[in-house]
Amino acid sequence: MIVTLTTDFGLADGYVGILKGVILSIAPDAHLVDVSHDIAPQDVRQAAYVLGRAAPYFPRGTVHLAVVDPGVGSARRPLLVQTPDACFVGPDNGLFTFALEQPGAAAYELNRREFWRPAVSATFHGRDIFAPVAAHLANGRLPADLGAAVADPVRLPELAATRSGPGRLHGHVSHIDRFGNLITSIPGAWVRHGAWACHIGGRRIAGIQQTYAAAPPGTLLALVSSGDTVEIAVRDGSAAALLGVSVGEPVDLQQITG
Amino acid sequence: MIVTLTTDFGLADGYVGILKGVILSIAPDAHLVDVSHDIAPQDVRQAAYVLGRAAPYFPRGTVHLAVVDPGVGSARRPLLVQTPDACFVGPDNGLFTFALEQPGAAAYELNRREFWRPAVSATFHGRDIFAPVAAHLANGRLPADLGAAVADPVRLPELAATRSGPGRLHGHVSHIDRFGNLITSIPGAWVRHGAWACHIGGRRIAGIQQTYAAAPPGTLLALVSSGDTVEIAVRDGSAAALLGVSVGEPVDLQQITG
Amino acid sequence: MIVTLTTDFGLADGYVGILKGVILSIAPDAHLVDVSHDIAPQDVRQAAYVLGRAAPYFPRGTVHLAVVDPGVGSARRPLLVQTPDACFVGPDNGLFTFALEQPGAAAYELNRREFWRPAVSATFHGRDIFAPVAAHLANGRLPADLGAAVADPVRLPELAATRSGPGRLHGHVSHIDRFGNLITSIPGAWVRHGAWACHIGGRRIAGIQQTYAAAPPGTLLALVSSGDTVEIAVRDGSAAALLGVSVGEPVDLQQITG
Repeated sequence: MIVTLTTDFGLADGYVGILKGVILSIAPDAHLVDVSHDIAPQDVRQAAYVLGRAAPYFPRGTVHLAVVDPGVGSARRPLLVQTPDACFVGPDNGLFTFALEQPGAAAYELNRREFWRPAVSATFHGRDIFAPVAAHLANGRLPADLGAAVADPVRLPELAATRSGPGRLHGHVSHIDRFGNLITSIPGAWVRHGAWACHIGGRRIAGIQQTYAAAPPGTLLALVSSGDTVEIAVRDGSAAALLGVSVGEPVDLQQITG
Repeated sequence: MIVTLTTDFGLADGYVGILKGVILSIAPDAHLVDVSHDIAPQDVRQAAYVLGRAAPYFPRGTVHLAVVDPGVGSARRPLLVQTPDACFVGPDNGLFTFALEQPGAAAYELNRREFWRPAVSATFHGRDIFAPVAAHLANGRLPADLGAAVADPVRLPELAATRSGPGRLHGHVSHIDRFGNLITSIPGAWVRHGAWACHIGGRRIAGIQQTYAAAPPGTLLALVSSGDTVEIAVRDGSAAALLGVSVGEPVDLQQITG
Repeated sequence: MIVTLTTDFGLADGYVGILKGVILSIAPDAHLVDVSHDIAPQDVRQAAYVLGRAAPYFPRGTVHLAVVDPGVGSARRPLLVQTPDACFVGPDNGLFTFALEQPGAAAYELNRREFWRPAVSATFHGRDIFAPVAAHLANGRLPADLGAAVADPVRLPELAATRSGPGRLHGHVSHIDRFGNLITSIPGAWVRHGAWACHIGGRRIAGIQQTYAAAPPGTLLALVSSGDTVEIAVRDGSAAALLGVSVGEPVDLQQITG
């Protein structure tokens, strides 16, 4: 059974190694796959974005462990989210908003301490609660064995795109990747027909291109990203650096022709 | 059989890939788990800290390969340390001090060249000696087949905590993690009873908290870390940045009430 | 079956997790091994160097997936290179120059869309073409089932070393590793006999040493690297920082005595 890991631990401290040791001690046959350990410290939204984008590509039945947990030791609940395709384990802080939106999703507050490490620290629930629970899921335990159903898991405030008037779309930058590409919240399907101009950071970008190669090197272009939303990029360069924008920056699109 | 890897190689050069290729060529069924490849270059003490913290969480029988090796090619010996729980393979430079301190630990100088790569370079014993030996251990070879017992493996000078007078504890910063938390050498058990004040970097921090959330954002607090030693942290911030201290910084605790 | 991964994706965006999910959905038993995801963005030459150095250490039959793909979505072909030892899958941009140089190497343009993801984006062929093809290779598919033989795969311009006159060698810096060591293109075999002086960055370094430990800390030395080419290093320091040179810097060696 595959267990993926997404954390803000970095790789210099050995915390990731501890999680893996705990999982393999309980589930020796677990197939561990790192999604990311380079989430910015305590950036729950980034972790939700990254895991939300990657999870759909994993086989049915995968267990996703995610630990970005600024509230560790406080009253925030330990959570398990089950969807028809996967299970998600981690803190109840909005990390799994994308999973909760899926039809058939169910949330459980983890409360069965016999599946945790015997001594639970106040500062490392990843090791003491979430990794053991993920391992027991990998061993075939059912979510209902591990917690109690809850109806009100925490969800991140939505940063969805909207339409106003004919041919006017509004969204924002959801994520900036390593290449400086700006991934927006505007669905690619909304710009599939007609011609569009994109307004961001005081600049206007005309047209939706098919590929990065459609623009000259160093110039801005808009295209539909591999995640099926509008993306602003610079060929052989960084749109984030060129525009000086960050996550949350508004993006507007206006239809030029129909 | 699990083989963990801890190095200062980083991930940009492919050296880690070479280690993994060598291991899997000898032990195709080895289950490779990265502990860290982001140890600061040649920082033996950091590697010893990180691996020493992570190793206890792995299943019995795990083989831990560690290569932080500023003395490669010099007279420093290639080493194997066996404990009742695990085997450790790497240079004899103090990396395995924590393992040598365990009851029942035994050290071997690797000297059976038939278990090494045929040509041994002067600059990459990780590839030519340590990875092959780790792979043979994963295949079930016994330590005594791979080397000769030695009584004097290198140990790092101890940076242990001490008590002086009633209610006075002295230690130092052992590690600074990605979040800027200062992990000290003072055992958590020493501060479990009574009230304490912590002195570090010219600042006084009153009280030992249960969780990060016990302090207001941006303020210093002391607590017992997940590794069971006293830790200095800043809620939603970096204690290392706030105090401007580094590894080795002295930390003193004084009991306020009994 | 082992599938290695080499990309310039970094680990913060989840793209690597997506590749792994795609592969494991098709080939659940694939043994995934990261070679590097820290290739500098779009640096095809660095990726070719790193994978070319690591690939020979993997077991026969390994599948190497490499995605450093500045031309994604343009006319550049998707490529598979088969050698007697391994298969390589990725863009046809010179990444696999080292493999193409091996006797018995054959190149195929990937053109059998039934082995790709049903919808192929213009910006992420790693996910949509290369990862599925690597997974099918891991499942035992033959290269000839996946593409059509091509005779003209892209090769990087050679940066080979040359000899001019008696005892005069010319090369360049091929790679700078994490430690600041300068790996050159000059074969170690060329300097095995006689005494040599190395000229680089306006400095002269006399002698070829056996180990880093042969020089005092902080001083330049030349030696034959673990990859069997001449390397310039600084003991306990960074030759790249000391000399201020980068990849491509010329290196000349002159024989002092025979």
